[in-house]
Amino acid sequence: MAPWGKRLAGLRGVLLDISGVLYDSGAGGGTAIAGSVEAVARLKRSRLKVRFCTNESQKSRAELVGQLRRLGFDISEEEVTAPAPAACQILKERGLRPYLLIHDGVRSEFDQIDTSSPNCVVIADAGESFSYQNVNNAFQVLMELENPVLISLGKGRYYKETSGLMLDVGPYMKALEYACGIKAEVVGKPSPEFFKSALQAIGVEAHQAVMIGDDIVGDVGGAQRCGMRALQVRTGKFRPQCVCYPVYPCVQML
Amino acid sequence: MAPWGKRLAGLRGVLLDISGVLYDSGAGGGTAIAGSVEAVARLKRSRLKVRFCTNESQKSRAELVGQLRRLGFDISEEEVTAPAPAACQILKERGLRPYLLIHDGVRSEFDQIDTSSPNCVVIADAGESFSYQNVNNAFQVLMELENPVLISLGKGRYYKETSGLMLDVGPYMKALEYACGIKAEVVGKPSPEFFKSALQAIGVEAHQAVMIGDDIVGDVGGAQRCGMRALQVRTGKFRPQCVCYPVYPCVQML
Repeated sequence: MAPWGKRLAGLRGVLLDISGVLYDSGAGGGTAIAGSVEAVARLKRSRLKVRFCTNESQKSRAELVGQLRRLGFDISEEEVTAPAPAACQILKERGLRPYLLIHDGVRSEFDQIDTSSPNCVVIADAGESFSYQNVNNAFQVLMELENPVLISLGKGRYYKETSGLMLDVGPYMKALEYACGIKAEVVGKPSPEFFKSALQAIGVEAHQAVMIGDDIVGDVGGAQRCGMRALQVRTGKFRPQCVCYPVYPCVQML
Repeated sequence: MAPWGKRLAGLRGVLLDISGVLYDSGAGGGTAIAGSVEAVARLKRSRLKVRFCTNESQKSRAELVGQLRRLGFDISEEEVTAPAPAACQILKERGLRPYLLIHDGVRSEFDQIDTSSPNCVVIADAGESFSYQNVNNAFQVLMELENPVLISLGKGRYYKETSGLMLDVGPYMKALEYACGIKAEVVGKPSPEFFKSALQAIGVEAHQAVMIGDDIVGDVGGAQRCGMRALQVRTGKFRPQCVCYPVYPCVQML
């Protein structure tokens, strides 16, 4: 394997996943992963452009950034690419009125969206709001539509909270896909459009950028398919059996 | 198409699905589908052997049969092939101790099963018990196992209650399969073993039997793959867009 210096040659930008890389979410705002506050500060002092690229869909950007700032991170809302705003743009462009199967924490991102007489479903990491009743409501909306549209904010399998592994939006997306015999449109990582919008925001080409994440599919695979380099950290949801190539201990090592 | 007399030539036995064919479940015990009580009585007076073959996994056989008897059906517990008892046999044979992601109504079927230190998950139509917390508990059990075993009582997409379409066990089975990267073992229709055990109970060969149901995959497709004939009724979860061959209006027409 080439040394790190060589592998990172020509690098101009870094996309950083948040959950599992910078912090583990959980009760009381979660906890910063050791060394990550300093790693972000060091990156920002470097010549590299930095963009936070998250599939967080349980909190609004404002809430997420507030939590991270309280943990000591140098981060602002404008530096974050997140799926809810991207979904809102799609909804407006296509005249879609969603039934929102989402967490209350992210509802404010949809304040400007018409949700009357739904003609699609938007599903996000709803956590405890994934009650049978709520999931069934979304199912019934889809079954009433001639051309059911299901928009999923990411398709992650699970994430790590301080209390343990937690089901993410992906399993519930799959449940609705199977129930209705449809295929969801994924907004967020690993969608190429999503990575591209994050790169555009910092004016960096794919071949000049590296994505750093803990998800082998959403972060690493997705970024590589876009022509970016990618690093997986051993924190967050990382589990040894997921490894099929060298990984990085944590973001602190950068 | 051949006339009915010819299509049913050599028939010796009838397997009857219950939910959506004989009755629609729902509040207050559900309602009998028009003509179905008489159809069962007529079948039982005929020379044909009758077996009830259900994927019902929200209620114990005792509760299900009690409800049907109150609606006027001639049915006894011994005439019912259901997935919970079949699953219990598998658990005992393989020394499996399940985490039960099931409805309280069917819990009594598992009274004789050791559920300490779970080394597998059994999932059934849990209805409201499909809370995020309960589904996540099952997920965490599976993720702790070296060889995760997920046993699903059926894999139906949805069923019809008097109040509307309701998510069945299948979507939640798919959710856990995706979350854990595993494949469930399905006990119940359309599993060939399940149909065979129902046929054995009435001493009828597959080619001498017809399955009558409202589910194109679980009932019709499964029975045909076992060498049985199959009829789909237009009641229960039947929806016109599901039809790819002639269907029967309801069980009353038999």
